[in-house]
Amino acid sequence: MFNIRKIITISDYITMLNIISGLLAIFFSMFSLIYLSVMFDALDGYVARKTGTVSEFGAELDSISDIVSFGVAPSYLLYTHYDSNFVLVSAIIFCLCGALRLARFGILNVEGFVGLPIPAGAILLVGFCQIINNSYMDAIIAILVGLLMISDIRYKKMRNKIILCIFAISLILAIFGIPYFALLLCLIYCIGGIITYLKQSH
Amino acid sequence: MFNIRKIITISDYITMLNIISGLLAIFFSMFSLIYLSVMFDALDGYVARKTGTVSEFGAELDSISDIVSFGVAPSYLLYTHYDSNFVLVSAIIFCLCGALRLARFGILNVEGFVGLPIPAGAILLVGFCQIINNSYMDAIIAILVGLLMISDIRYKKMRNKIILCIFAISLILAIFGIPYFALLLCLIYCIGGIITYLKQSH
Repeated sequence: MFNIRKIITISDYITMLNIISGLLAIFFSMFSLIYLSVMFDALDGYVARKTGTVSEFGAELDSISDIVSFGVAPSYLLYTHYDSNFVLVSAIIFCLCGALRLARFGILNVEGFVGLPIPAGAILLVGFCQIINNSYMDAIIAILVGLLMISDIRYKKMRNKIILCIFAISLILAIFGIPYFALLLCLIYCIGGIITYLKQSH
Repeated sequence: MFNIRKIITISDYITMLNIISGLLAIFFSMFSLIYLSVMFDALDGYVARKTGTVSEFGAELDSISDIVSFGVAPSYLLYTHYDSNFVLVSAIIFCLCGALRLARFGILNVEGFVGLPIPAGAILLVGFCQIINNSYMDAIIAILVGLLMISDIRYKKMRNKIILCIFAISLILAIFGIPYFALLLCLIYCIGGIITYLKQSH
């Protein structure tokens, strides 16, 4: 029961690749590795479902990997990209919101997501950081995305295979330095959730 | 139920201070902030028990904060301290073992700990890094400590108030640049567990 080798499944090894990619993003200040982490994150869930190895341990490891790759790494990249006090505060807020989002996700048992999923949040932050070279703009984006993550706005889990394929291609492009499509897709997803929420509130 | 402000308790705010301290350790490459994180980590559990606010959300947030402050931050400090390939590999191994340790902790329901607790692991890594200025030695220590974290060795939860007070003082000294006592206490704790394990195996 305690022996860790007996608990680890194939999907957990993919989650570990997610952690390694996130760590290397921090160590070498590489934006592109965040997108690679998103790939691994999507892949581990897929493999776990296909191989019937969905486990409580896997879910715990997933949360832990997500805070490394989509919480700490984007915050660090944002801060080191600009190195200013305002950006420092926004980077901390982003990571804290990500942590709260992940902890809430761990205890909720609902269909879909409550609050913007952290991989989408990371893509928005990192993507804008690569495209807009303005510290104040990117810091404000980090805070807004952080607040969206801890909001009550409901987001659907994407299951449409064509959309998932387009997203996968956009991620590959982002890994090779073209983040526009991945950013655009996440922006549509993000704003779509807000519009649905506002419609339901009225 | 979804509203995050209704879930967060006083102890969760202390856990957030742990995350902030861990992030700043990474952003500013400061060893001493790891010890501050250990202080917050001990404090949040104490406050949660005293105020009767122990919660599933708090436990999730605790795991997430631990990987930031005692997984990513020490790994990053080790790597940037030496900047060599061997150290890079050992830093990744340390962080991966920490993640596996935390995920296993999240699913086990046993008295005490299975595997060296990650805050003790972080103190051992960071402490030796500050004292021994040899990249190979520190890299090997990182790997050994990592393996101890995912081992089956049982560790007791310290409840003796005198020992906890001495540990708190040693942490304060470590925050102010004197890591020897905190390192010594963790080393005794670490080796004590190994000796008990070896005795029981025979």
